[in-house]
Amino acid sequence: MSVTAVDGFEAAGIASGIKPSGAPDLSLVATASREPVSAAGVFTTNLASAAPVQISRLHLADGRAAAVVLNSGNANAATGDSGRADALRMCELTAEGLGVAPSDVLVCSTGLIGIPMPMAPVETGIPKLVGELAPGTDAGHRAAQALMTTDTVRKESVADADLGDGRHIKVGGMAKGAAMLAPSMATMLAVLTTDAQAEPAALHAALERAVDTTFNALVVDACTSTNDTVLLLANGAAGGAPVGTSGHAYHALVEAVTAVCDDLARQMAADAEGATKFVHLVVRGARSSEEARRAARGVASSQLVQCSLYGSDPYWGRVLSELGASGAFIDPERVDIAYNGVTVCRHGIAALHDETALQASMAERNIEIVCDLNVGRSEATMRFTDLTHAYVDENMGTS
Amino acid sequence: MSVTAVDGFEAAGIASGIKPSGAPDLSLVATASREPVSAAGVFTTNLASAAPVQISRLHLADGRAAAVVLNSGNANAATGDSGRADALRMCELTAEGLGVAPSDVLVCSTGLIGIPMPMAPVETGIPKLVGELAPGTDAGHRAAQALMTTDTVRKESVADADLGDGRHIKVGGMAKGAAMLAPSMATMLAVLTTDAQAEPAALHAALERAVDTTFNALVVDACTSTNDTVLLLANGAAGGAPVGTSGHAYHALVEAVTAVCDDLARQMAADAEGATKFVHLVVRGARSSEEARRAARGVASSQLVQCSLYGSDPYWGRVLSELGASGAFIDPERVDIAYNGVTVCRHGIAALHDETALQASMAERNIEIVCDLNVGRSEATMRFTDLTHAYVDENMGTS
Repeated sequence: MSVTAVDGFEAAGIASGIKPSGAPDLSLVATASREPVSAAGVFTTNLASAAPVQISRLHLADGRAAAVVLNSGNANAATGDSGRADALRMCELTAEGLGVAPSDVLVCSTGLIGIPMPMAPVETGIPKLVGELAPGTDAGHRAAQALMTTDTVRKESVADADLGDGRHIKVGGMAKGAAMLAPSMATMLAVLTTDAQAEPAALHAALERAVDTTFNALVVDACTSTNDTVLLLANGAAGGAPVGTSGHAYHALVEAVTAVCDDLARQMAADAEGATKFVHLVVRGARSSEEARRAARGVASSQLVQCSLYGSDPYWGRVLSELGASGAFIDPERVDIAYNGVTVCRHGIAALHDETALQASMAERNIEIVCDLNVGRSEATMRFTDLTHAYVDENMGTS
Repeated sequence: MSVTAVDGFEAAGIASGIKPSGAPDLSLVATASREPVSAAGVFTTNLASAAPVQISRLHLADGRAAAVVLNSGNANAATGDSGRADALRMCELTAEGLGVAPSDVLVCSTGLIGIPMPMAPVETGIPKLVGELAPGTDAGHRAAQALMTTDTVRKESVADADLGDGRHIKVGGMAKGAAMLAPSMATMLAVLTTDAQAEPAALHAALERAVDTTFNALVVDACTSTNDTVLLLANGAAGGAPVGTSGHAYHALVEAVTAVCDDLARQMAADAEGATKFVHLVVRGARSSEEARRAARGVASSQLVQCSLYGSDPYWGRVLSELGASGAFIDPERVDIAYNGVTVCRHGIAALHDETALQASMAERNIEIVCDLNVGRSEATMRFTDLTHAYVDENMGTS
């Protein structure tokens, strides 16, 4: 149940002293062979990307990597040249330990922005971290544990797939992120491993597709972090011909990667900072997928909608208003809105319904909202949570 | 100090019973002559616009109006055909009382979305309202008072201008809106009057310009209401040749209208629901005005930035991150950020500064944030407030 669920990958996690609390803060995933393998990454679109994002992008240019080193407790973001030097140094230290080239090491950081990386614990920590590398579940758990910031639980997952030609593959993964729902440390990081035999291009295509419908459909406070990173390493141990960018094997790979990303995204939402509601939002009947997503994002990002949900209030007027303001085309008088299967708005006006029954179901933690725009056939799904006092508390200060 | 500060306009405000609380809820502004005059309006861009917005747009097609009737306590939004019939009926009742055509009456509503307008109090209330029409400050105050929803104070303003040809004009205004900062009733409404002689086209151009830099620069929670409306009536009592769409007289008109809108916007921000901070944000050095505004909107709308401010925390890393995610072009390593005149980030990294002095100034209610992107010459200004426990409280329920 982790990145080490896939044979041929090892992991480690230790406390190096980056975090003043003494909690685990350095994490490593590496190929057991110490050889670089096919790798792909999806990174934040934020133009103010953090130093480790910049370095990992460079190191992924050849589509190969042997290891990923990660730290929590400091984002190494908004740190300029010295930040890049620090991120590169993390790769070098890891590479020295593993006997690989620094350009075969990827790096991720999460924590506060704008504070120089404390390099003393990193210098002593990484050699120790490399020494702890091990196969198996416990090592995977330790790696996942050392990623945590405001997370209250580790996030790990595994899936397998039949490639249709007698080969089976496995995908393992770990992630951190208390739902991107705006922690002080808003970053989401994920590292996935697989034994599929795949060229970097196929791997990248599969990862982008999976991220699109999972992590990218888990919003909200609409904050795109400086450090968001999802990485996938494929060691090819399953053998056979490389998976291409189409065909049955490719789709099976996409499905397995998506399953792991989806499970990790659900775990993030479930661990959302201060949240009391976990909302599954569907917008259907849009003119295009792009408009469906835009409309869903508008609703999911709305502070007013989020506050209503905290109050267990099915105030559909705010949902309709956000659909109208989203930039997606709607005809308000065709819109239907249902909470937990109960239609509260039909053709843009209030629909008679059993208010007592609906109110009872609104008290639950899991809420479903379905909006049918009735102007097309496209659909999008988003997960989001409510806006609570606890959210405000957690994000008032940096401490 | 109100819409009635301009000679030739009368106003009234009464309690009709739309609000169960019995607070004033019906408001009227009309020409003393009962003749239609030049009029212009700027409306919400929300596709789910409320019935009164739809009716007012229709009635403004000829650029003329004799009166504006407004109610608080119900938004008449998401109410379909019957909502439009109700909005039209409000115009008819007003027109009957005034002896004008229904199409010369504009209508605005604010309150909860999705609930049919209670027409019984409207039917008896509007004739009474018309009977109360009067010139002078007190009548203006009553009209402004009857607009209030979660507002704790009336918002009124007046300005004058010298048109440069010996003529002086006056502009009066009233508004409601607890800062658009996401009240349960998020709408902002404003009615302005002037004695300028101006064609509808010039009036519309002047109003759009004024709204752009005032109400539209007062964000945030990024919620665009179904009912937002700003109206301007010009009775031409100042005489002379009509103000055109350029030249000194036009610019003087723009300036006076802007002054009133700006003052009203400031009053809204100062009355923001649950806010403890009032932030003046400047983004300069952008490649274009559009990008400057986009960047400013990104920062001002950020729940993370808003939470930091509630905690009096000058966490510039979040500001930089929002600039990077805004869609505007930035080079993070050219960005400078200052809080209250103290540069905390220079060229994208932490700048040494007197932390004690800055922390002391962060405790104040008024905070200034200046971001210089250093990639161009364009600038934008936004006002916003912080995200607080009280905000969450006010918006949890509809009651």
